[in-house]
Amino acid sequence: MKISTLSIGDELICGQVTDTNAGTIASLLLVEGVRVQRHITVGDNEPDIIGALSELGRVSDAVIVTGGLGPTADDVTSLAAARATGRRLVINEDARAHVRRMSGKLNNLIVSPLNDKQAMIPAKSALIPNPTGTACGFQLMQNGCHMFFMPGVPSEMIVMLRETVLPFILERVPLKRVIRSISLNLFGPCEAEVDELLRGIAQPEQGLTLGICVTFPWMKVTLRSEADNADAVAGLLQPAAETVRERLKEYCFSTGDVSMDDTVAELFLTSSLTLSLAESCSGGLIAKRITDVPGSSRYFSEGAVTYSNEAKIRLLGVPAELLNTHGAVSSECASAMAEGIRLASGSNLGLAVTGIAGPDGGSEEKPVGTVFISLAAPDGCRTKRFRFGGSRDEVRTLTAWTAIDWLRRYLLKQDILFNVNN
Amino acid sequence: MKISTLSIGDELICGQVTDTNAGTIASLLLVEGVRVQRHITVGDNEPDIIGALSELGRVSDAVIVTGGLGPTADDVTSLAAARATGRRLVINEDARAHVRRMSGKLNNLIVSPLNDKQAMIPAKSALIPNPTGTACGFQLMQNGCHMFFMPGVPSEMIVMLRETVLPFILERVPLKRVIRSISLNLFGPCEAEVDELLRGIAQPEQGLTLGICVTFPWMKVTLRSEADNADAVAGLLQPAAETVRERLKEYCFSTGDVSMDDTVAELFLTSSLTLSLAESCSGGLIAKRITDVPGSSRYFSEGAVTYSNEAKIRLLGVPAELLNTHGAVSSECASAMAEGIRLASGSNLGLAVTGIAGPDGGSEEKPVGTVFISLAAPDGCRTKRFRFGGSRDEVRTLTAWTAIDWLRRYLLKQDILFNVNN
Repeated sequence: MKISTLSIGDELICGQVTDTNAGTIASLLLVEGVRVQRHITVGDNEPDIIGALSELGRVSDAVIVTGGLGPTADDVTSLAAARATGRRLVINEDARAHVRRMSGKLNNLIVSPLNDKQAMIPAKSALIPNPTGTACGFQLMQNGCHMFFMPGVPSEMIVMLRETVLPFILERVPLKRVIRSISLNLFGPCEAEVDELLRGIAQPEQGLTLGICVTFPWMKVTLRSEADNADAVAGLLQPAAETVRERLKEYCFSTGDVSMDDTVAELFLTSSLTLSLAESCSGGLIAKRITDVPGSSRYFSEGAVTYSNEAKIRLLGVPAELLNTHGAVSSECASAMAEGIRLASGSNLGLAVTGIAGPDGGSEEKPVGTVFISLAAPDGCRTKRFRFGGSRDEVRTLTAWTAIDWLRRYLLKQDILFNVNN
Repeated sequence: MKISTLSIGDELICGQVTDTNAGTIASLLLVEGVRVQRHITVGDNEPDIIGALSELGRVSDAVIVTGGLGPTADDVTSLAAARATGRRLVINEDARAHVRRMSGKLNNLIVSPLNDKQAMIPAKSALIPNPTGTACGFQLMQNGCHMFFMPGVPSEMIVMLRETVLPFILERVPLKRVIRSISLNLFGPCEAEVDELLRGIAQPEQGLTLGICVTFPWMKVTLRSEADNADAVAGLLQPAAETVRERLKEYCFSTGDVSMDDTVAELFLTSSLTLSLAESCSGGLIAKRITDVPGSSRYFSEGAVTYSNEAKIRLLGVPAELLNTHGAVSSECASAMAEGIRLASGSNLGLAVTGIAGPDGGSEEKPVGTVFISLAAPDGCRTKRFRFGGSRDEVRTLTAWTAIDWLRRYLLKQDILFNVNN
């Protein structure tokens, strides 16, 4: 089955916004063993959309289209779809009812007549329900090609894709090849090191490939195996995954789509330890990430974002003399912050960071990127100096990742004071 | 001049990596008044590349291709380009010398014979120099269409684009049109409301278009004008931009690429007021955003992420009785938090949020999404109840955006207690 995607939007073709829908669709299909063959992007322009639909309709069995279904005049996908397939645009009563219901719900406003535009779809199309937004999608069949039209808002699109489009397509795929993949997520080593560690594992001629995808500051290693049946795929994939896991050891913080933050949350929930934070250079980023996870209130008590010295003294009990002698960016201050927040909050663990995120504030002795991380626990306090490279944003990101990875390693009783090569 | 782009790579068509090259090329061309009309992505697959090149060659005056020029066997762009244009692949001595020089430099290794593959380009092509990597690009002319081939590594591609491809194309654009745009960034109204407010401003037949791009939870309105000369463009654009600005009023927080956080930072720096934060449901997200901006230490003193009631009592002085009577998610608690952090820190402004981000913890009286925001200032304390829709992540995002927008409005002496329709 030949599948193509078409993304529609002036903001996409102009390069103002990067399209992620095509990639989302392709990866969800790939998991099911189906590959997208061609992708096109065009602007909100009727002739260009008609041209792309005709071209893709000619070479594909299914075309998945996103974008251009909004209420405003610049969105012309429905009209172009009707013209490209020689249909009239007709009002769909189910779509109208849906649009009215959703607009009311989302805006608490009287429904504007504009919204009726979103209920106009090409004749002889079936609606694709949109449980989370106003714009319904629609699907139609033209010269043997299934065409699916969905709004471009990623969160709405993905629900419609999962609930309606994917099941429809997968039911019609003949002789599916089995493709399975296992992803392991790493933090710590550099790409060359991982490449070296994983040498010899891929066997492309057997259908076993290995890819490393670097998404600063972490990495995803994906093992992918393709064969005629599930047993053959598993026979290739499982032993290879074991080897990868053994070689990567503690660098691997999770598999699949499980984030570092989810991993740490899970570990806290099973440990029944509690946590408080004292952040200087990361400015709340660590607290934000900890509390991103639902249920974090069960182990997270409080965080102090102590940007000023006064706040370090008052909230964390860091001695003013210590700040005078060693400065706020020092091993001594980091330890005092960690011990201080642990004591004040009564939590089991106190995690603190202090450093110079830049772009200003560095010195020869303590250049930009100098960061101290400290973890105060019932069995003592560990503190380490780091020198992170990159922009302010990158230094803060690396600080938060390393600090949260310390929590993971502590809860797993692993070595904390290892080297980060980023 | 009709221009298309083609991105080649298995990792792109599979959705493993998001292509940014097409967007980079489109935006750099647009600045020069040239639009990309169509974009295609295909995998590293000879027939697919040949198909895309033939199709784009037929409808375009220039095709800019990226990807698939690497040394390994899976990269087949040069071969496909040769086949698509009926040429042989020949070794190019300049390319060979370049590849050998660069491989030595980059790897400190003996040059592998693999690299000679990168010196094979279609006959009758001109090299596109690559100052920063091994893979040279090449350009050729086929049936009146200029085709440019560059490696997919963004940092290498952009240098080659700027130094060779763009000048070549711009020299050949007949009667270059001048395109200029102005973007205004909004927070608060829903898309239908903005559409209503801006009705009648676009005059597409005169070359003045207006686009609304929703990037949750804010929006970008872009006015774009196109004409034969700069004066005509300015004559269309300036008055329209004035009108847009008047109609959008306080919703508009910045223009161009200036973020909400940058706007607020700038306002704090000129106001010489200081700020402290008390966050419950946003869990540090507001502090994180405030401290994302370099120089924030000049006005930001401290933040308290008070997840537990104990922390609200100890750090913010919220009376235990108040928590018992009204609960932590209440107007009374939000005000006490804002006043409390203002008093404790000695800052001019104390901003506090408390609410239920979900997915659990809601009740009939206070459903998930109920959030109280409070701003304590020298002239009194304002507190308001909100009901935000969406996931935990969306509730937290809307909370932080609304709270930070309150700071902007306060510093600009604007109305704070307006309605957010998101």
